[in-house]
Amino acid sequence: MSVKSKIKENTDKKKRKKDDLFKSQINYQLWGLFSMYKRLSLSELSDKLKKSKSTIHPYIKDYLERDIIEVKEEKQVRGNIKAKIYGFKKGYHERIFSCSNDKNCLEKKEFDKEFGNKIVRENIMKTKLYIKNLETQLKFFEKILNSGINGPDERALNILKEIYELDPAKNSMFKKKSVYSIVAYNSKDSHHLLHQMMNELVIKFNEATAGEEDEFPDLEKPYYFLSFGMPLKKMMEYLKS
Amino acid sequence: MSVKSKIKENTDKKKRKKDDLFKSQINYQLWGLFSMYKRLSLSELSDKLKKSKSTIHPYIKDYLERDIIEVKEEKQVRGNIKAKIYGFKKGYHERIFSCSNDKNCLEKKEFDKEFGNKIVRENIMKTKLYIKNLETQLKFFEKILNSGINGPDERALNILKEIYELDPAKNSMFKKKSVYSIVAYNSKDSHHLLHQMMNELVIKFNEATAGEEDEFPDLEKPYYFLSFGMPLKKMMEYLKS
Repeated sequence: MSVKSKIKENTDKKKRKKDDLFKSQINYQLWGLFSMYKRLSLSELSDKLKKSKSTIHPYIKDYLERDIIEVKEEKQVRGNIKAKIYGFKKGYHERIFSCSNDKNCLEKKEFDKEFGNKIVRENIMKTKLYIKNLETQLKFFEKILNSGINGPDERALNILKEIYELDPAKNSMFKKKSVYSIVAYNSKDSHHLLHQMMNELVIKFNEATAGEEDEFPDLEKPYYFLSFGMPLKKMMEYLKS
Repeated sequence: MSVKSKIKENTDKKKRKKDDLFKSQINYQLWGLFSMYKRLSLSELSDKLKKSKSTIHPYIKDYLERDIIEVKEEKQVRGNIKAKIYGFKKGYHERIFSCSNDKNCLEKKEFDKEFGNKIVRENIMKTKLYIKNLETQLKFFEKILNSGINGPDERALNILKEIYELDPAKNSMFKKKSVYSIVAYNSKDSHHLLHQMMNELVIKFNEATAGEEDEFPDLEKPYYFLSFGMPLKKMMEYLKS
């Protein structure tokens, strides 16, 4: 096989694989775990996912092939045995959600089939990720609710309380005019206004947090923002327990 | 049966029923349709849901019993036949998400079992609603993708283009530093900052749109905000087509 066709084959492989990134539960869980914990060994992943190392290994291999993660370091475990520590590879997000760094894509004015395909595929991936995260939240609350007789037991109540107190604007979840009241149906005018306000917010937020990614690449990110802040790490740990 | 026990029975019925509000697909769809279209007759609902009137009728009855909707007017159809036009009953949102108007609930400082139960049940309802809406989005994109050979057909591309152009900050979906980049994992500090910024945004947004609800109670609300603006009505109509 020529070098050229070898490259072609690899590109096709990556392209094909990209579409089904969040098809498997484990792939999705890996994405979340690396987002939250930053650096993990196979043993740690095995522990967190409650799956054997041999089950997880092919998924790690897949992530390495997709250039999503890389080996960050090798730790001496005992004797000659070394454990590889994995973490996201710089630029992974842009490689998966391809348009974000692609000038041609950004400046695209025409809605041809190729562009349509790209938009739709990326939106399918993102939507699947959102749904899976919300399903985690749902399972979390259901487990809390069923932990005791006629409602949460003491431990569940404490976890709930912790989450509640994480919210800097205490109780905002239950105020009428809270973030929850805009997570809802809007008129055309409201929608446009909200969109503009959100775009301004995002610019400010990204400016304020720009240093974080560069200065602390290994900083844990346990919160998932999807119209409200999900303490996803806490939820997953509770579900796993 | 005494009046008192009759009232008790009705209260229990409402309480019991509230928990499973979004359990059925039709109940959830009704919620969305009334949010978006504001006023609908049984015939219109039957048409939009692609279900017979007799299938939908029990759900309408249930919504009436829960005080979610009411008969807004009766329209002369032909001869003596009148069609009832339904719409949300003022305060429906507070009646379903009970804590939002309940001073005791808002000021609750202690995390007892009763409060925990309330929080969890409401969050389960909301999460189910979010998931169902995202599932609609997913089905929408999948239908778009599979409409033609190797990608969207012409009609699908046009629909996609319309949605794309609804976004006042064109292409923001694909820019690196867009609203989509904060719909993601955050560190503790970023999470707190984002929460505060969101709360400020919500206050401003609600102030700016406060008149809408009072002045135009029948205004259609075709957009659903869940970290981005979903043109849900358009999606549902496309799915139905």
